[in-house]
Amino acid sequence: MDYAQESLRKHYEWRGKIEVISRAPVATKEDLSLAYSPGVAEPCLQIQRDVNESYALTRRSNMVAIVTDGTAVLGLGDIGPEAAMPVMEGKAVLFKELGGVDAIPLCIRSRDTDDIVNTVRLLAGSFGGINLEDISAPRCFEIERRLKECCDIPIFHDDQHGTAIVALAAVLNALRLSGKQKDSVAVVINGAGAGGIATACLLLDCGITNVTLCDRGGAIYIGRDGLNTEKQCMAQITNPENRKGSLADIMKGTDIFIGLSSPGCVTQEMVRSMSKNPVVFPMANPVPEIMPDAAKAAGAFIVGTGRSDFPNQINNALAFPGVFKGALAARARSISEPMKVAAAEAIAGFIPDCALTPDCIMPSPLDRALAASVAQAVAKAAALVS
Amino acid sequence: MDYAQESLRKHYEWRGKIEVISRAPVATKEDLSLAYSPGVAEPCLQIQRDVNESYALTRRSNMVAIVTDGTAVLGLGDIGPEAAMPVMEGKAVLFKELGGVDAIPLCIRSRDTDDIVNTVRLLAGSFGGINLEDISAPRCFEIERRLKECCDIPIFHDDQHGTAIVALAAVLNALRLSGKQKDSVAVVINGAGAGGIATACLLLDCGITNVTLCDRGGAIYIGRDGLNTEKQCMAQITNPENRKGSLADIMKGTDIFIGLSSPGCVTQEMVRSMSKNPVVFPMANPVPEIMPDAAKAAGAFIVGTGRSDFPNQINNALAFPGVFKGALAARARSISEPMKVAAAEAIAGFIPDCALTPDCIMPSPLDRALAASVAQAVAKAAALVS
Repeated sequence: MDYAQESLRKHYEWRGKIEVISRAPVATKEDLSLAYSPGVAEPCLQIQRDVNESYALTRRSNMVAIVTDGTAVLGLGDIGPEAAMPVMEGKAVLFKELGGVDAIPLCIRSRDTDDIVNTVRLLAGSFGGINLEDISAPRCFEIERRLKECCDIPIFHDDQHGTAIVALAAVLNALRLSGKQKDSVAVVINGAGAGGIATACLLLDCGITNVTLCDRGGAIYIGRDGLNTEKQCMAQITNPENRKGSLADIMKGTDIFIGLSSPGCVTQEMVRSMSKNPVVFPMANPVPEIMPDAAKAAGAFIVGTGRSDFPNQINNALAFPGVFKGALAARARSISEPMKVAAAEAIAGFIPDCALTPDCIMPSPLDRALAASVAQAVAKAAALVS
Repeated sequence: MDYAQESLRKHYEWRGKIEVISRAPVATKEDLSLAYSPGVAEPCLQIQRDVNESYALTRRSNMVAIVTDGTAVLGLGDIGPEAAMPVMEGKAVLFKELGGVDAIPLCIRSRDTDDIVNTVRLLAGSFGGINLEDISAPRCFEIERRLKECCDIPIFHDDQHGTAIVALAAVLNALRLSGKQKDSVAVVINGAGAGGIATACLLLDCGITNVTLCDRGGAIYIGRDGLNTEKQCMAQITNPENRKGSLADIMKGTDIFIGLSSPGCVTQEMVRSMSKNPVVFPMANPVPEIMPDAAKAAGAFIVGTGRSDFPNQINNALAFPGVFKGALAARARSISEPMKVAAAEAIAGFIPDCALTPDCIMPSPLDRALAASVAQAVAKAAALVS
């Protein structure tokens, strides 16, 4: 199927992929007096007395804002807020259909960090959580950091943490299958943008100690010239042997490759140079760093991509609906590292031992039971933290 | 019924009066590829090529933001953004149930005019229109004016213009019943806040020339001390004989009284002092300027209030769903005076001659056919203007 043209046709037909409906009846004058004036004054006063009641008396407890400035949309780049909306509406559809979470897209007409922070900060009282989406690096790091400081609700940049969670889930199941251990496995992540950096951090948090980040200039190591602040920080905590060299150099002998970079940058030779039973997750989308068939032919034991037309789809949709569902249920003030690890473990654990094979390490994003399972794990982790 | 306690109970039960649902199916991988990645890239690119396509390819064409800072909520005053949410959700319910318009409440955590203007301005690309709500005067005037200047979508402060439209509709049907003429009838409006000023302006725009505004200090006239900017402007265009005096003085001989002020400030003596067949619209809510029975006993020919438990409910819900539905259908860039007058005429005209009586001058806000009729009139007026 020509997805591009068929999707365009469907979008004209849908005229928007979300809509807002009423949960309260408005058939009679009495209905109106309860859902609206004069009755509505009482829940208002109740919230004025105790602002926490906004979670019980309004939709806030289940409502997430999906916030973007349209600067890093899919593989399309900086297409602007209006053009980003179809992706954000798609995300809202997944929030609801997979996680039962209400989500509304807010596409901001500014690339200015202060503008984005202020807009979200001022609206935080209307939502239970904020999903930042498709905001380009490195602004996304500052925006998220500042919002976490000034907001009393979870702030979650999905391109960082959603990606990290599903990548970790894939790694966990690769370890289960290969019998390799967290503390001895060597992982290379290519791509040191939002997704790559967050994935490296989460792997470390989960106890995977040997992680090396690469970018177009090869390995990120202490002392490399021209690193931005984020990469300098990453050099401190990754690449334990402080190795230098190109991606090809670094991949030699490595157990697991994670690609969050660009199409076709991994060759069969590079896969052949990895350790025994190499695990290859070329997640660049829609065209991966190496095509699954080529990776398999070069000896890859497990391959997973971002695509739905190959086995082992490593897709953020496995994580964000359940992560928010759980954080909202626990009324967590933030989404902590233990909550993210719990989400990854729940996604990995969703595949029982009897079903786990090299071509089945990830659940289907369409499995309606997954988000509930992830949510339960996330809420439990939230309770332990607080 | 004790509406307060029953409404509170219902609000706990509802846990929010709105929710966001999907219009696109997500049952199969193919569905996912069309509504989301990879297919969704094509509608994104289409909007990037022509931003107008956002109206055809996303929900923007039917999506309104209800924006408040919670400073003038119902009769409760400045209760803050979170406590305002039950009213805003109620409004969203009415938007959808009565007008088929999707609406999402955004309650802003700031009373600062710049903050509110910036937040709305930056989000204007995500919506087809903005309903400003329950923002206290005089800030509401500046906020609306500045937003109209910088946004390319309709900005409509319902407390001003929604109120003005339904008040004008009531006046038009009072004229139909009484046989009095627009250019000879004398109208007094008590209350020179957002609603009173907007109502005076709309009556003038509609050809009712003799309108006098009163506030707590009595008639607003040219040269009165201590008037704020808005009231000084109103003094120039209302009160053609530049009368001075208290509300009681000004009501003598007047044909129509419109109250947008405070409970109980009109006496039976004041009604008795009006012209023959006086028309009395004490719209203060929930307690009117004079109770309908008292006004009738003092000789009022027609009485209308904001309340649902008396005849002739003059309620904004008669206007805003249809006004936005029509403006969105016409893709109007603003809601002009002729569009407002058209809305008022459509509401008034919704009561056929055969049904028009002193106790039946206003349609029921629950009549599902009304918004469509108002929308048609508004869209037609929009087309004539542009």
